[in-house]
Amino acid sequence: MRTIDWVDGCPQIVDQTALPDDVRLVSLSTVDAVVDAIRRLAVRGAPALGVAGAMGVALAAKLGSDVDDAVRRIRAARPTAVNLAWGVDRAAAYLPDGPEAVLAEALAIRDGELAASLEMGRRGGDLLQELAGEHIRVLTHCNTGGLATVEYGTALAAVRSLYERGCLAEVLVSESRPLLQGARLTAWELGESGIAHRLIADSAGPFLMARGQVDAVVLGADRICANGDVVNKIGTYAHALGAQAAGIPFVVVAPESTVDVATKSGADVDIEDRDGSELLEFAGRHTAPYDTVALNPAFDVTPYALVTAIVTDARVIRLDRGDRL
Amino acid sequence: MRTIDWVDGCPQIVDQTALPDDVRLVSLSTVDAVVDAIRRLAVRGAPALGVAGAMGVALAAKLGSDVDDAVRRIRAARPTAVNLAWGVDRAAAYLPDGPEAVLAEALAIRDGELAASLEMGRRGGDLLQELAGEHIRVLTHCNTGGLATVEYGTALAAVRSLYERGCLAEVLVSESRPLLQGARLTAWELGESGIAHRLIADSAGPFLMARGQVDAVVLGADRICANGDVVNKIGTYAHALGAQAAGIPFVVVAPESTVDVATKSGADVDIEDRDGSELLEFAGRHTAPYDTVALNPAFDVTPYALVTAIVTDARVIRLDRGDRL
Repeated sequence: MRTIDWVDGCPQIVDQTALPDDVRLVSLSTVDAVVDAIRRLAVRGAPALGVAGAMGVALAAKLGSDVDDAVRRIRAARPTAVNLAWGVDRAAAYLPDGPEAVLAEALAIRDGELAASLEMGRRGGDLLQELAGEHIRVLTHCNTGGLATVEYGTALAAVRSLYERGCLAEVLVSESRPLLQGARLTAWELGESGIAHRLIADSAGPFLMARGQVDAVVLGADRICANGDVVNKIGTYAHALGAQAAGIPFVVVAPESTVDVATKSGADVDIEDRDGSELLEFAGRHTAPYDTVALNPAFDVTPYALVTAIVTDARVIRLDRGDRL
Repeated sequence: MRTIDWVDGCPQIVDQTALPDDVRLVSLSTVDAVVDAIRRLAVRGAPALGVAGAMGVALAAKLGSDVDDAVRRIRAARPTAVNLAWGVDRAAAYLPDGPEAVLAEALAIRDGELAASLEMGRRGGDLLQELAGEHIRVLTHCNTGGLATVEYGTALAAVRSLYERGCLAEVLVSESRPLLQGARLTAWELGESGIAHRLIADSAGPFLMARGQVDAVVLGADRICANGDVVNKIGTYAHALGAQAAGIPFVVVAPESTVDVATKSGADVDIEDRDGSELLEFAGRHTAPYDTVALNPAFDVTPYALVTAIVTDARVIRLDRGDRL
């Protein structure tokens, strides 16, 4: 099953807000539907957003009315992940050649992400085995599996590769508040694959590392800056501090399309503050008194000095050894 | 309103599992009810647990059947906070003198905690003002307010003291998964007092510190070891790592009854692993697929080297300056 694909003339996604209760396929037949799906995280994950952006442009080109405005709105639906703008721009470059050419480019991006996932899995598995041995207890954050890409995943593809080699002892999955991508999506993906895992509170990770229960941290990225700073799901930085204190590897796995050499460092990235209701409501119930206000940064910045290595579909950058992008 | 008191011949508590929706007073008329209230966190917070333990023994002495077994069961209801055993032992020492003497000791412990809260508030406020100035943005974790004590609180008493001095800019309240004591209890207490606050995800704290949005971290302790290691709600250690990286003060406020010189270091403390359902269920809904397993350590250990100072009702221990307990 693909997280996003082009089916019957429009993008089709697995609605990730309905998981794990429902596996719901949704056809996005209008530009508004594409923008809305991206905004409400029905489709999410940096690589999948690249494909969604490109397919959104292909849809706009096919529908034909006010294409420039549609491109602008899709591109701006979420600000932090570089892949969305990247996918939109790549597809939009073919607009002068007609809708067929735009769609061909969107499908090429999809196929490129599929190939990249397999390559990241292999390279990431190799590196983790080299760094942490043959019986690895991995901690991961948020969702970086097939649901964040088209299939397979980024960091979770590397975990899956360890599993296939017989080198994976266990995955600790941080729940990833506020939207619980770890609990809802990663636990679901690992369960479907029969991979041993346990859910933990986000704030337990650093302590479990200190107690010797984690051999390596592996997670994804929404944007990798020119200096190696990693912008990723809120909580990534706290996990990186924990890994540094425990002396265990902290590995980031993301496709080349997430590398943004035009952005010098994490300080230059627009961090998306999302609505407080994400934190204040769950399953229709308030988590706090009715009039409570929340501060809800959706991402954080992990300085490159805390990152052992960045694994892409094309290379392994050992920041701990002085390699640079 | 007192979190716990002796009313009409038995302990009466505010049931904290019902907050913030309901303010429900519950009379604990049997030893089983006391043990159950402690286990399910209807009464919680290290100082309040000390009073609950002592009043539980007073109740057992009054009821008169199988007192030794009752004392043992109350003492073992939760393993991590030292105050519970301390309160039980202090009251139980008066058993040979009869039920009236035991009750008198339990009431003395209650009154001692009330006085200690006021003292901690004053000393903590003084220290925070000295360390962080006249316009302080504080981050706190879990609940250390009146609900964790009898009235006033520990760390939150210090925050309240800053507020009364006009030196408090804002309180960032981490929600404190899995049981949301920050969201449910601290946000409620601050709201009732009209103190400006915003709720954040637990994993956002270290990033907000790095971004310069926090001037000091102040929180409580369930046990302070002889070497200064602090055992407290899971997530405390991650916040301490964040504070160290950001170069801001990390202040622990707790009564002398929480200091446990008999325990050498955090490595010697039995950390309570609580049931995974706390993480896996919220408001009757699953947060993860049905068959997911969770690892749920309720506390963590913060090494003394990460702690700027410990404030008690009797002293300020500047660990950052080499002071020791």
